[in-house]
Amino acid sequence: MRKLINAPADVVADALRGLAAAHPSLRVDPEGRTVVRADAPRPGKVALVSGGGSGHEPLHAGFVGYGMLDAAAPGEVFTSPVPDQILAATLAVHGDAGVLHVVKNYTGDVLNFRVAAELAEDEEVEVAAAVVNDDVAVEDAVHTAGRRGTGGAVFVEKIAGALAEEGARLAQVADVAREVNERTRSFGVALSSCTVPAVGEPTFRLGEDEIELGIGIHGERGRERVRMMPAAEIVDVALTAIDADVPLRGAEVLVLVNGMGGTPLMEQYIAYAAAAEWLERHGATVARSLVGPFVTSLEMAGCMISVCRLTPELTRLWDAPVETPALRWGR
Amino acid sequence: MRKLINAPADVVADALRGLAAAHPSLRVDPEGRTVVRADAPRPGKVALVSGGGSGHEPLHAGFVGYGMLDAAAPGEVFTSPVPDQILAATLAVHGDAGVLHVVKNYTGDVLNFRVAAELAEDEEVEVAAAVVNDDVAVEDAVHTAGRRGTGGAVFVEKIAGALAEEGARLAQVADVAREVNERTRSFGVALSSCTVPAVGEPTFRLGEDEIELGIGIHGERGRERVRMMPAAEIVDVALTAIDADVPLRGAEVLVLVNGMGGTPLMEQYIAYAAAAEWLERHGATVARSLVGPFVTSLEMAGCMISVCRLTPELTRLWDAPVETPALRWGR
Repeated sequence: MRKLINAPADVVADALRGLAAAHPSLRVDPEGRTVVRADAPRPGKVALVSGGGSGHEPLHAGFVGYGMLDAAAPGEVFTSPVPDQILAATLAVHGDAGVLHVVKNYTGDVLNFRVAAELAEDEEVEVAAAVVNDDVAVEDAVHTAGRRGTGGAVFVEKIAGALAEEGARLAQVADVAREVNERTRSFGVALSSCTVPAVGEPTFRLGEDEIELGIGIHGERGRERVRMMPAAEIVDVALTAIDADVPLRGAEVLVLVNGMGGTPLMEQYIAYAAAAEWLERHGATVARSLVGPFVTSLEMAGCMISVCRLTPELTRLWDAPVETPALRWGR
Repeated sequence: MRKLINAPADVVADALRGLAAAHPSLRVDPEGRTVVRADAPRPGKVALVSGGGSGHEPLHAGFVGYGMLDAAAPGEVFTSPVPDQILAATLAVHGDAGVLHVVKNYTGDVLNFRVAAELAEDEEVEVAAAVVNDDVAVEDAVHTAGRRGTGGAVFVEKIAGALAEEGARLAQVADVAREVNERTRSFGVALSSCTVPAVGEPTFRLGEDEIELGIGIHGERGRERVRMMPAAEIVDVALTAIDADVPLRGAEVLVLVNGMGGTPLMEQYIAYAAAAEWLERHGATVARSLVGPFVTSLEMAGCMISVCRLTPELTRLWDAPVETPALRWGR
């Protein structure tokens, strides 16, 4: 295994020490595994807390900052954060206006966030949860009842974070988070596996000329394995699956073409060109876009496409200023 | 070969179509292969033009925008742009205050930029050049007389771009570009090869447990192949090599820990943690930092560390607002 790590057991703590050293705007606890805005708690502001397994960076810790998350709770690689950790993040940022938990739909995450919410409520902190389940590829995969939460988390965290920054109440922030999730669909394709450091072996193996359609962000099985195809055909499979679930014709959309960690930016732009053309050809208008590695699976090659059908209000919130390590504009 | 491409011959044009679709702030000519600020030419402003082989994205096209480059000329993958292309970019952005060419030190790039400069001067456009040769790993490698230009290009383009944005004259902008280059050193390590699409085979092959120290950004040979080692030791090799060339003790430094394209962000932060600790232990002060994939080699795994010894003026220019697809703050 050739990885830029010190020891498999230390990857999360070591990465958090690097995050702390690089970003004075964050307060990082590498042992307790929380990443918090340095200016938290912000009195009177609804706080947003997310978290999940590590190995998806910059999700979620890279989205902590003005206009997005107040805290993140990173678990072990591809492993849910524990309730105590989520509780610590929640208590560190609550500003007496309530806390929204943004939870990707994996059984362990949902359970541990629920336990943490109950513990927080024991301490008089009001908590609401928005579950992200945007992946159209499969239902009831390994680790998941229902649909998996993937790239749509970026949209949910950005847009709900913007509304919270404006001073909205907890119920409103939770509603917009759920609205974004409901209007968003994603589909991912793997061109290679990834290797979890503690395992030391690839999670799965693809043949020389084989790719996997509908992959999950932990390497969970997708819909099918097929022969390698041109980028435009891969994009067609992804957008056809999304469009079959929620018709895109006539919609104004926000599009994320997301690199899975091991695919060069050049190829992500090639996929984005195909996606923009596909959407135009099918009667959708791309109003906003984002290209880059935002929700990764370690060094997996491939891409995920996420599409959100915008409203004028969601567009306004997407455009609002944001200042985090991984997403920054307008401020 | 599993790549998210349509056809090997089309990768540059297809990626430029994606760049154009994603960034209305850019004027992109996918056939003529130029990427220009949409608001160019800016009368009275020194224009910065860079370029080089494709496959290093976001370098250079991702750095076109306010406070950085005015134009980029992307060549074929790992191949110098041709003089006509560089000339077209130069003529598209010159605002009667002269043009600075930022050129990475590869024989083809230096030659083609020189020819383009002569052609531009035939059309009464004043051109100066700043050559970037920051790589301490090897002298006189394949494609290069002297030292190679690598990660330091990011520092040169950002800082010289900031000074140009303030209205400095061509000689001043060229001087600060050369000053940044002189104060910057880089060293890269490969944990895997990359595959040029038109070739279809990895550029080189590493043994199961082998890495290459001092690698170039096209997979050119470095100093030596060694057994895999922990991230902290890899960082020690890189910073020891830089420090041997330009002592860092007592310096205030700007540090880039740069992912080569196939290494997850988590591992880049692990390397950054080790770099920050190494520098502190050796008496240098990290004043500014950047972690992420900014100068890549397609899907090569590994990292490059670049260190610039700052002055108060260089720090001020680094902090100045910038707004490009890949680097954005303060505006």
